[in-house]
Amino acid sequence: MRVYQGKDEIRQSLRESRQGLKVGFVPTMGALHEGHLSLVERCKTECDLCVVSIYVNPAQFGPSEDLGKYPRNLDKDLELLSKRGADLVFFPDDVQMYPPGYRTWIDVEGLSEKLCGASRPGHFRGVATVVLKLCNIVRPDSMYMGLKDFQQIVVLERMLKDLDCETRIVRCPIIREEDGLALSSRNAYLEPDERLRAISLSQALKMAREQVASGTRDSAALIEEASKTVSAAGGTIDYIKIVDADTLEDVAMVNENSRMLLAVFMGKTRLIDNCALGI
Amino acid sequence: MRVYQGKDEIRQSLRESRQGLKVGFVPTMGALHEGHLSLVERCKTECDLCVVSIYVNPAQFGPSEDLGKYPRNLDKDLELLSKRGADLVFFPDDVQMYPPGYRTWIDVEGLSEKLCGASRPGHFRGVATVVLKLCNIVRPDSMYMGLKDFQQIVVLERMLKDLDCETRIVRCPIIREEDGLALSSRNAYLEPDERLRAISLSQALKMAREQVASGTRDSAALIEEASKTVSAAGGTIDYIKIVDADTLEDVAMVNENSRMLLAVFMGKTRLIDNCALGI
Repeated sequence: MRVYQGKDEIRQSLRESRQGLKVGFVPTMGALHEGHLSLVERCKTECDLCVVSIYVNPAQFGPSEDLGKYPRNLDKDLELLSKRGADLVFFPDDVQMYPPGYRTWIDVEGLSEKLCGASRPGHFRGVATVVLKLCNIVRPDSMYMGLKDFQQIVVLERMLKDLDCETRIVRCPIIREEDGLALSSRNAYLEPDERLRAISLSQALKMAREQVASGTRDSAALIEEASKTVSAAGGTIDYIKIVDADTLEDVAMVNENSRMLLAVFMGKTRLIDNCALGI
Repeated sequence: MRVYQGKDEIRQSLRESRQGLKVGFVPTMGALHEGHLSLVERCKTECDLCVVSIYVNPAQFGPSEDLGKYPRNLDKDLELLSKRGADLVFFPDDVQMYPPGYRTWIDVEGLSEKLCGASRPGHFRGVATVVLKLCNIVRPDSMYMGLKDFQQIVVLERMLKDLDCETRIVRCPIIREEDGLALSSRNAYLEPDERLRAISLSQALKMAREQVASGTRDSAALIEEASKTVSAAGGTIDYIKIVDADTLEDVAMVNENSRMLLAVFMGKTRLIDNCALGI
């Protein structure tokens, strides 16, 4: 009889009877853009098998949100994924994911209620639950996620660690349009004038980085400046915060682990963006 | 590129690159008795590898419950498991299972608040969370659990299904003392006179089965009779219910899927037992 106290050790022992291809996973809601495809490419370079899921998860949308009109184009998505060399694609339907009688939910307490979670109650509960389900189906070694959804990454990393999942998240850079707008499937909602004014989000972040580089450390001053930039472009601020990148708690003075996060409505479209304020 | 809509199909595809020994798992809180050991034996007959965990999970005890005095005897447990041929034993400590910053919890809504969950708020949240963690570490094909904790089995089966875990629960019969008392680590708390009177739980169940066999279908009448039996023995009833075995909802008339569940204090010790009321 072999006896273990360490979870790493017992896992290793069990794993030895499993043979190993490295499985990479890119969970998406479809309407794929170059941001998603950059994740697929990274996944392919680092893994033996690249698995992509396409699923517009109803559990992460609030009752007044854009579930119904969220862009869907499966044929085009499959064509893009095939061209980029994805190995497996998974596109389940709602009955498969949430069959009648479904009643199990994951809460990552303390990280889920802040920032986007304050504006979108239940959002991260839905995200955490569907990602755990997908991970249990695909069992990836690595999951590739874009830093644009920064809070999502923090919530999911915590969940995977707390629940002893072996999947690790690979944090991938935000992909931007030439003028700086972070790619998002929701950019398709923007009217032409909103599209132009939407660059104010990345401009505000860039200015904050420059101010920090010039010596500013006071979060309130940086946030005030960013707010002016976004407001001047006609954006309605949901939040602009400077937080610790691990705890997501507000920080009064910028340090090497601080990040600026913002959520802004341009017309009816809610956009998010963020950046490190590296010192 | 291979494309899947079915989770079973994509899983199968992924599994083909995994080689397979059948892994069986018996999660316990230690203080092992013949009930636990019957699970180990069943596991050994049905699986290639028999994994047993011993962990007194603080998350499933309420603040006023018996976490501190719960019986612990690791040396004896290991000796028993070795004799019975367990292959791997896992006994993590609290820091490993709930490290600083831990904040992720599983809720199985609707099934967790009833019956024992009503008397023990948060109990099944703690049970569901630790069992998911253990399953993620051990990755068993089958998990062996005793029917004595019937609600626990229903909650966990729902969780495993909802979260797309591949582990299946094997429901194993309740092991009893010769006089009918269901084996439990908590029986060690009973004073000699309480031990004698504790047989009233299984007696009440037996009577209910006999009444059903004689044609009684009315739940209220059956529950009243069972309550008299337990009360006459000096037990303080927490609950006596007849429920649907899948939904755990009360049923007014007994049918083929009904089960009687009871929780009774003998002195300070809370005992549970249950049986099918098969027609």
